Amino acid sequence: MKATILNIGDELLIGQVVNTNASSMSQMLIGAGIDVCGTFVIGDNASDILFYLQHCLDRSDVVLITGGLGPTKDDITKNTLCQFFGSELYENEEALANIRRIFESRGYELTPINRQQSWVPRCCTMINNILGTAPCMWFEWNHKVVVSMPGVPFEMVNLMETEVVPRLKKHFRTDQIINKNILVQGIGESFLSDLIEQWELALPSSIRLAYLPQAGMVKLRLTARGGHDDRALLEQQIHDAVASLYPIAGQYIVGEDAETLPELVASTFKQQHITLATAESCTGGQLAQQLTAMAGASEYYRGGVVSYCNEVKECALGVNHQTLETYDAVSEQTVTEMVLGVRSRLNADYAVATTGVAGPGGGTPERPVGTVWIGIAGPNGQVVTRLLHFGDRRQQTIDRTCFAVWSELLKMVKGN
Amino acid sequence: MKATILNIGDELLIGQVVNTNASSMSQMLIGAGIDVCGTFVIGDNASDILFYLQHCLDRSDVVLITGGLGPTKDDITKNTLCQFFGSELYENEEALANIRRIFESRGYELTPINRQQSWVPRCCTMINNILGTAPCMWFEWNHKVVVSMPGVPFEMVNLMETEVVPRLKKHFRTDQIINKNILVQGIGESFLSDLIEQWELALPSSIRLAYLPQAGMVKLRLTARGGHDDRALLEQQIHDAVASLYPIAGQYIVGEDAETLPELVASTFKQQHITLATAESCTGGQLAQQLTAMAGASEYYRGGVVSYCNEVKECALGVNHQTLETYDAVSEQTVTEMVLGVRSRLNADYAVATTGVAGPGGGTPERPVGTVWIGIAGPNGQVVTRLLHFGDRRQQTIDRTCFAVWSELLKMVKGN
Repeated sequence: MKATILNIGDELLIGQVVNTNASSMSQMLIGAGIDVCGTFVIGDNASDILFYLQHCLDRSDVVLITGGLGPTKDDITKNTLCQFFGSELYENEEALANIRRIFESRGYELTPINRQQSWVPRCCTMINNILGTAPCMWFEWNHKVVVSMPGVPFEMVNLMETEVVPRLKKHFRTDQIINKNILVQGIGESFLSDLIEQWELALPSSIRLAYLPQAGMVKLRLTARGGHDDRALLEQQIHDAVASLYPIAGQYIVGEDAETLPELVASTFKQQHITLATAESCTGGQLAQQLTAMAGASEYYRGGVVSYCNEVKECALGVNHQTLETYDAVSEQTVTEMVLGVRSRLNADYAVATTGVAGPGGGTPERPVGTVWIGIAGPNGQVVTRLLHFGDRRQQTIDRTCFAVWSELLKMVKGN
Repeated sequence: MKATILNIGDELLIGQVVNTNASSMSQMLIGAGIDVCGTFVIGDNASDILFYLQHCLDRSDVVLITGGLGPTKDDITKNTLCQFFGSELYENEEALANIRRIFESRGYELTPINRQQSWVPRCCTMINNILGTAPCMWFEWNHKVVVSMPGVPFEMVNLMETEVVPRLKKHFRTDQIINKNILVQGIGESFLSDLIEQWELALPSSIRLAYLPQAGMVKLRLTARGGHDDRALLEQQIHDAVASLYPIAGQYIVGEDAETLPELVASTFKQQHITLATAESCTGGQLAQQLTAMAGASEYYRGGVVSYCNEVKECALGVNHQTLETYDAVSEQTVTEMVLGVRSRLNADYAVATTGVAGPGGGTPERPVGTVWIGIAGPNGQVVTRLLHFGDRRQQTIDRTCFAVWSELLKMVKGN
């Protein structure tokens, strides 16, 4: 089972919009047991659409198309699909009702141009797009499937999750795939690989292991793959494999299932009913942003201070003026007072703090760009600090500092 | 002049990594007067690389390749290029010196595998990659150009900016392209289009106008295009076009050149030597993060408070307990006290505040998910508040709230 992805749109081609659709579609396809053999971005151009649709059909069983379904005249995907399949457009009642519902809910009048969005090729199965006005279209052609979806990411994702992927699984009776992530910290990839070698060799042939190293941790991904009816068996195999890993490498395992460290922080804090506060200088709010981007943050996150200038470190966190004068804003003493200050003022169980020189300016010989202090404070009043050295790339320094903070925080929580 | 982009890498194909390279490469090519006719993502697979390289060469004058240049055995781009061009690898001294320098600076020993990264095909021009160990390779073939670059985004971007794009411009004597952005607020796209119709009709034929509507504003992009030696003329034409727009639509113009609203906020505050503080509830640090992601934020950004729970609104911002009890945390009264509190406590000229229900939980009949209050406070003590209603998509609500805040802030600064 192979798929190709065809993302249509001038805005993608000229780089005005980053093509996040390709990666989210790939992930969903692979999660459903369908391999992706290529993703192509082309403009709103009929001859290119015809050429690459044929090209994709020659190379794969499934072609997923996004884009070019809007109401304006530069959106030509629907007419081009008609041309390709030798079909014609008709007004689909269910699609029209959906469009009417959306326009009414927004208080807009339905114009003839918007109404045209309910026209779909006669040869397709219309799949209702409840989040938008462009319908999804499912074509079957020489035992292959072509699906055309709107390019708006959240509409596409919803259609993929609720309609397209389930239909593809059923249509092709695809393999069952189960993924399981295990997050490991405090051991390098090669040492980990040596440590768990015998365990890996003993895995059943249905399970594949992948190392996905990231700054500060290694994600182990177990993928079990089997026939359409083997789900229960695969689940048991994954369960057994994970259980047998703990006696060997349990001390390095910081979590399961989470994709990212902030996710793991969130699930850990929620499970343990503990709370967190942040004090950020060089990360400038990114720690807070990473937590609050996830629903349910209010269950454990009390809040934070972005103390970008020294005065705010003093007034909002209670850092001593003398500490800043004597030791500098980027120092172990300052980060310690920041983390203790925010923990006590915001009345949280745990707190984290960052102060550093993200650059490109602000470096000195003693404290070059990329110098960062982080601090973690826990419920018993304990504080852990770490000095980090990164390079002169601002966003990388911010990202890696966040990573180090989550990593140290999880260590402390695990140890308590 | 046409280009195609070929991004090679299993991690892109399976969606583990979002392909940001394609969009940044497209933007740089288009900025250099080179059209992009397609971008293709394929895996680390020799037959696919050979097939699509030929395919791209058949369709364009320039093929830019990224990825597959690492030291491990799944990186096969270099050997495959040798096969395609009928060449062989040799150890390039300049590339080796660069790799040695990088290893020494990191305190690592150079292994034979790393040393192999200095091997490049004899038929290419090696372009030194000062930020990484994989060299860039420039091939000329039947009057066309193929460039192979590492897939690491910051290495690729640096190579494109400093080497590849300048060489392409020179090699093909490409057209001169000048882009100019004008940010417009407070008028819808269709009304704006009516207002400036005569001005648009009077533009010289070398200048094209594009409307790029975004939530809350319209970006007008003027693109002047002319011969390789016409730069001065084009600059004058752009200058005149912009100058003649002000008498017609000046009241709606909030800025020039900036790509995003946070960029415009940053440049405005720096120019006017004024300062800013943030108090965030539902945006959870994203306002702070957007400002501090840009270098030089410390020139105007004092800091902020992420008051995710009510207690923090009281203790860190001075919101009255009674206000929260009587009016609710999501209310005009609360946002007003938040914005005044953070402005005075952090001693800033201007301040912004947000409080709302980002969802998906936390909604009530009176205050459904997506309800947001924003507040802006200025140096004369004035406060502007706005009630916004978004849907139940958390990240969209956060993003749009940030947009509305920057927009209202710029209006107030402009009015003062």
